[in-house]
Amino acid sequence: MSELTNIKSPRVKAARRLTKRAFRDRDRAFLAEGPQAVREALALDGVTVELFATAEAELRHPEIVTAAKLAGVPVFRASGEVMAELAQTVTPQGLLAVCRFVHVPLEQAVAADARLVAVLAHVRDPGNAGTVLRTADAAGADAVVFTDASVDPYNGKCVRASAGSIFHLPVVTGLPVGKAVQELKGRGFRVLAADGTGTRTLDEVALDAPVAWLFGNEAWGLPAELLALADEVVRVPIYGRAESLNLATAAAVCLYASARVHRQK
Amino acid sequence: MSELTNIKSPRVKAARRLTKRAFRDRDRAFLAEGPQAVREALALDGVTVELFATAEAELRHPEIVTAAKLAGVPVFRASGEVMAELAQTVTPQGLLAVCRFVHVPLEQAVAADARLVAVLAHVRDPGNAGTVLRTADAAGADAVVFTDASVDPYNGKCVRASAGSIFHLPVVTGLPVGKAVQELKGRGFRVLAADGTGTRTLDEVALDAPVAWLFGNEAWGLPAELLALADEVVRVPIYGRAESLNLATAAAVCLYASARVHRQK
Repeated sequence: MSELTNIKSPRVKAARRLTKRAFRDRDRAFLAEGPQAVREALALDGVTVELFATAEAELRHPEIVTAAKLAGVPVFRASGEVMAELAQTVTPQGLLAVCRFVHVPLEQAVAADARLVAVLAHVRDPGNAGTVLRTADAAGADAVVFTDASVDPYNGKCVRASAGSIFHLPVVTGLPVGKAVQELKGRGFRVLAADGTGTRTLDEVALDAPVAWLFGNEAWGLPAELLALADEVVRVPIYGRAESLNLATAAAVCLYASARVHRQK
Repeated sequence: MSELTNIKSPRVKAARRLTKRAFRDRDRAFLAEGPQAVREALALDGVTVELFATAEAELRHPEIVTAAKLAGVPVFRASGEVMAELAQTVTPQGLLAVCRFVHVPLEQAVAADARLVAVLAHVRDPGNAGTVLRTADAAGADAVVFTDASVDPYNGKCVRASAGSIFHLPVVTGLPVGKAVQELKGRGFRVLAADGTGTRTLDEVALDAPVAWLFGNEAWGLPAELLALADEVVRVPIYGRAESLNLATAAAVCLYASARVHRQK
């Protein structure tokens, strides 16, 4: 296999520009970096468009490169310099896949037996969004909705923070948050807004129905009109003196509280 | 009040070097940035050594500057350039306090009626450590122990991520992790290591006794010898397909599970 060594080659440039949202939206493709994400991408049919691997990474993860080839995915050996150009991390892990968009429409993401959905409204930090996606996956959520006021799920930092979870559960993107709430209500979900202004705490509300959790902005939470749309505003109890929890932490406590109730039934 | 405009003035340099651990340890002092942290520092007797404030911040938060003056804390007006030199954030909030170390010995941190303690073993990312400190505060923990293998609690990023919580609950630092475990056991705590290798899940263990949670490294968790020291290794259940949770998320789920059980008693 010949090695890509020129960072200005058309193939490298075409992949590199997927670090920008406008190009991702145009190509309907994104970058997934590192062995874990690449392995998860390859486990899905038709998602991986091409794979870049350094010689070192190919020696370290031969099974991944073999899986790509067996799946008919073109594999390109990349020099360290080319990988550094493509990767968005300080210490690239030597494997990077160009992947097709994986999101689905809400009606497809939320099956009739779905019981737990996380909705990101106004979440702006991609690391937080990816962490919530990973936590929702761990908590057994059925889907995660990135509304149009939240960060792009295909942002490199979000994909990395999701630690492969972007390939594990249905992701919805681009819906206006009001429409997402309306549709989830229409499908029988109780929409709970997680917000410090809630009158009842997580310990006081019934979580046995199908629940869609609404998580707001890192700094200012959820706007009044969204709080009004929810069936109830629920706060995570603060037992000590902290003013609040950070977004990803609050989401983890809410999602796991729901999961526990659902599993006990 | 005359304004500090020279980033090379001795006062500015003396504060600036507290961004380095060696100087913090020598001066037994650290920096707390932003209105929230400064307010919490001032609420404690004798913690704030001096306060730097831009003219803008003084107009925006007059009550903070007044509180400092009433407490006999020297207040220095700082130019935007001086604040940028002192602050470790991209957009400084205009208020920065030099504070005395606030940690206490373990025997003082853990009172006879203490029921919940978080122990950070090998936590290396200051943002994660600060987030766990904030979450422990929110969950009503009695103390947080930063062992000598973990990041410095006075690291600027840790202080910021704690969102004031470093001033809310007793913090212990510098103890070898083995010694911390031993002392907590001696004080009647059940030491639970949070780790994906646990045989029982959080939902399966009794959490009503006083519990000390042991949290490990972001990448590799807890070493075998520490797992062996714990009374039990407990994992957060993974209901979906995520391989694991991130450290701060796992800590949040564990601490809140303990808090809920303790509050229900």
